[in-house]
Amino acid sequence: MQEINIVRLKTDVQLRDPVLIVGLPGVGHVGKLVAEHLVEELKAEKIIEIYSKHFPPQVLVDENSEVRLVNNEVYTCSTEKSDMLILVGDHQSSTGEGHYQLCEAYIDIAEELGVKRIYTLGGFPTGQLTHTDEVLGAVNNSEMLEELKEAGIEFKPNEPGGGIVGASGLLLGMSKFKNIDSACLMGLTSGYLVDPKSAQSLLRVMCKIFDIEIDVGPLEERAKEMEKIVARLKEVEQQQQGIPEVSIGDDDLRYIG
Amino acid sequence: MQEINIVRLKTDVQLRDPVLIVGLPGVGHVGKLVAEHLVEELKAEKIIEIYSKHFPPQVLVDENSEVRLVNNEVYTCSTEKSDMLILVGDHQSSTGEGHYQLCEAYIDIAEELGVKRIYTLGGFPTGQLTHTDEVLGAVNNSEMLEELKEAGIEFKPNEPGGGIVGASGLLLGMSKFKNIDSACLMGLTSGYLVDPKSAQSLLRVMCKIFDIEIDVGPLEERAKEMEKIVARLKEVEQQQQGIPEVSIGDDDLRYIG
Amino acid sequence: MQEINIVRLKTDVQLRDPVLIVGLPGVGHVGKLVAEHLVEELKAEKIIEIYSKHFPPQVLVDENSEVRLVNNEVYTCSTEKSDMLILVGDHQSSTGEGHYQLCEAYIDIAEELGVKRIYTLGGFPTGQLTHTDEVLGAVNNSEMLEELKEAGIEFKPNEPGGGIVGASGLLLGMSKFKNIDSACLMGLTSGYLVDPKSAQSLLRVMCKIFDIEIDVGPLEERAKEMEKIVARLKEVEQQQQGIPEVSIGDDDLRYIG
Amino acid sequence: MQEINIVRLKTDVQLRDPVLIVGLPGVGHVGKLVAEHLVEELKAEKIIEIYSKHFPPQVLVDENSEVRLVNNEVYTCSTEKSDMLILVGDHQSSTGEGHYQLCEAYIDIAEELGVKRIYTLGGFPTGQLTHTDEVLGAVNNSEMLEELKEAGIEFKPNEPGGGIVGASGLLLGMSKFKNIDSACLMGLTSGYLVDPKSAQSLLRVMCKIFDIEIDVGPLEERAKEMEKIVARLKEVEQQQQGIPEVSIGDDDLRYIG
Repeated sequence: MQEINIVRLKTDVQLRDPVLIVGLPGVGHVGKLVAEHLVEELKAEKIIEIYSKHFPPQVLVDENSEVRLVNNEVYTCSTEKSDMLILVGDHQSSTGEGHYQLCEAYIDIAEELGVKRIYTLGGFPTGQLTHTDEVLGAVNNSEMLEELKEAGIEFKPNEPGGGIVGASGLLLGMSKFKNIDSACLMGLTSGYLVDPKSAQSLLRVMCKIFDIEIDVGPLEERAKEMEKIVARLKEVEQQQQGIPEVSIGDDDLRYIG
Repeated sequence: MQEINIVRLKTDVQLRDPVLIVGLPGVGHVGKLVAEHLVEELKAEKIIEIYSKHFPPQVLVDENSEVRLVNNEVYTCSTEKSDMLILVGDHQSSTGEGHYQLCEAYIDIAEELGVKRIYTLGGFPTGQLTHTDEVLGAVNNSEMLEELKEAGIEFKPNEPGGGIVGASGLLLGMSKFKNIDSACLMGLTSGYLVDPKSAQSLLRVMCKIFDIEIDVGPLEERAKEMEKIVARLKEVEQQQQGIPEVSIGDDDLRYIG
Repeated sequence: MQEINIVRLKTDVQLRDPVLIVGLPGVGHVGKLVAEHLVEELKAEKIIEIYSKHFPPQVLVDENSEVRLVNNEVYTCSTEKSDMLILVGDHQSSTGEGHYQLCEAYIDIAEELGVKRIYTLGGFPTGQLTHTDEVLGAVNNSEMLEELKEAGIEFKPNEPGGGIVGASGLLLGMSKFKNIDSACLMGLTSGYLVDPKSAQSLLRVMCKIFDIEIDVGPLEERAKEMEKIVARLKEVEQQQQGIPEVSIGDDDLRYIG
Repeated sequence: MQEINIVRLKTDVQLRDPVLIVGLPGVGHVGKLVAEHLVEELKAEKIIEIYSKHFPPQVLVDENSEVRLVNNEVYTCSTEKSDMLILVGDHQSSTGEGHYQLCEAYIDIAEELGVKRIYTLGGFPTGQLTHTDEVLGAVNNSEMLEELKEAGIEFKPNEPGGGIVGASGLLLGMSKFKNIDSACLMGLTSGYLVDPKSAQSLLRVMCKIFDIEIDVGPLEERAKEMEKIVARLKEVEQQQQGIPEVSIGDDDLRYIG
């Protein structure tokens, strides 16, 4: 098995000024909520599936009890202004090294499809439960700042102070070497819950950038679904904490014998 | 050393409509109990040993004080309906990446031996100590559903909600790409103990699928043995927690000097 | 992506008796503080950037909200006595294996640029909050001892007793095979805080070795800045501890199903 | 850098019926104590140094403040009965995969030097602080049992119940495939402390096997030295637990942004 398997569902994809939007799981699931909402509302078409041993060894079960391997997926759709590529997924990489590998693969795909700009979507944890209708930005080329400020995105020196970790940050840093302008847009969120309100703020900014109109209402519904999934994953995790394990853990690496 | 060493004890294996049954360690050891019981009761013959650096660096000691490297093994036997391949083992992979590597190797073996269907056996943790005589299923092709429901397997939309992690899930997801129909059958179990009752429920379902008769009684005995082994591994683990260690841990990666 | 990407900003670098000084993050950030201060005060010029998947998957954000991928960097400058190469960086490797890979790359660069001596700078944790104006040394060739003692460096048999972990130690051990004389110089520090006082002691020793004069005052200021960054990284970390996670952790590797 | 660097200090090594003795760090440091004592008392000559990125990224500091990279080493000496190869070292592998790699390298060396038998030395944790003058054995070929029982080694069915983890076990399991007879000899020890008493028991057995006489007294002294080193490593570890860290940990892999 290769480290990363890229399955193309459609060859000969022709796109007009495509922009790549990335919404993978992360803080408050803000980025994932917005990207999946865009896929749904814009009736985007899936063109690529990405499988990798850097994702957890897991399948998900659908409403027909049919499983599918966890993955990341690329969708495409058209807006009046330009074509859109949307990268969504079940997981980010499980390892630091995998993040680099996957982001490199994503940038290769972006280059191949003629992408000139990338937006990575995420949440920025405030630790406060009160909602702020604010979207914080960071860019890999300061020439983008004016345009993005006009769309209502806030920029603050050295923020986020702890940098940006994971695909949202890495894609900005790595695409810089390929001369692709990229911005990370972060909805402010408590950091404790799946946050549809923050996703609505971020979606409004995206609508402004792309000059499109999208109903933000269904995001509440989608967030509730996601909250349920998160809760069940948590539950399973807790149940498992009392399970006797035959598998050898780190403690056993203390060399019996 | 290769990542995975496949040792064939018998060449030129000819099988009639072989079905692969997989029972590796996991929740309640339900799958492992059932698969090892099948090997024993059907007098299955070992044809393949699989060694890998993705397993823990460990040997087990037998009743003659002779060691053997931990591994996974494939057995074969015949039933009236079809031939059976049974994959059992001491451990699953220690790493996420190793799970992908090993499952790919298992599917290669399955393909080579002409396997058209895979059953992975496991336990599903309920968190409840009361026993339920229920076996939950998931498939990689919904065409299998009717047939499996007739054998008494329950299917519930989106269950397990947290997906299926490890070889039991991965084999379903990965064999889909090879057009091998696969199902994961999970005995309901508390999640806290090695569970022979859940194994009996699952074994009864297997008997129905293969139209065979197998005494479920000895499973109690087998479970007691396994419980002892699990307990001793735990004991060793606890003893080791007070041991002074010369080896460098993560803390030391804080760069002294 | 290669494991390590070395970006040369300047080709045809000619150096006179170059000495490599290494100050990466570590105990009390003493080494990093001193090396960055040298870069600043000696107006050193950046000639190499090193990127690697062994660093965390992270970008940092500057005062213009522009990001850059975390990296290590080599600067060069001249002193009357000899030319200096200074290696500084945001992080050390995230993994043990990565430490070996990166240090090998650094020694290759050193060899290529004609380096005959390496000084790695760090802090040695005393567990005491009272400041000691002492710099402890270790070498990879005992012939260096006399000269370094004259510069005020203390040497104590078998100290540090726990060895030296990370790049500061590894560079000494590995450069020995290339016949490059190397010393690790460690300012004594509590181990609990970013320590500008310890950095001042270490800087004074460096000034003596290179026969240069550098104002140690601004180190206080620089340390305060660094303290702030460290605090924010901590804060982000703490906020994240209550976040529901969809990603699969180690617990889930207990094989549901 | 290769994964494992084997540095041969002497070429053209000719040995008479060589037996490989392995004493690496582990439970109670029993195996390490005995093997290092043999090297000392039999004035064994170092012929091979093994370096690897599977060891921690660390150097140790000697009495002259000179460092050396952590490693494993092979010594050789003669006894009347046969020649001896002794493998000792600072660490075992830091990772499960590394254990497999290193043990394979050790078996390659053994084969190349004509080794027909391997003894791996270790400790078996009893959890009891009272000393027992017992040495437990396990073999990779039951034909060895009678001979070893005569030397006073005890064998108990399925003991150790948790198997043997690390190089001591792996070398037995892996050498079996090369038809090298191997035994693991374990001194019983509490599991809480460096244990010279257990080492003395094990050394006496070794003397019987090789028909040699060695003073067991100095082991007490050697154990005290080792105890000190272990204590200092512990101390350093504890001091570091309050240190602010700039490096990104696993928590940050929860994707800020």
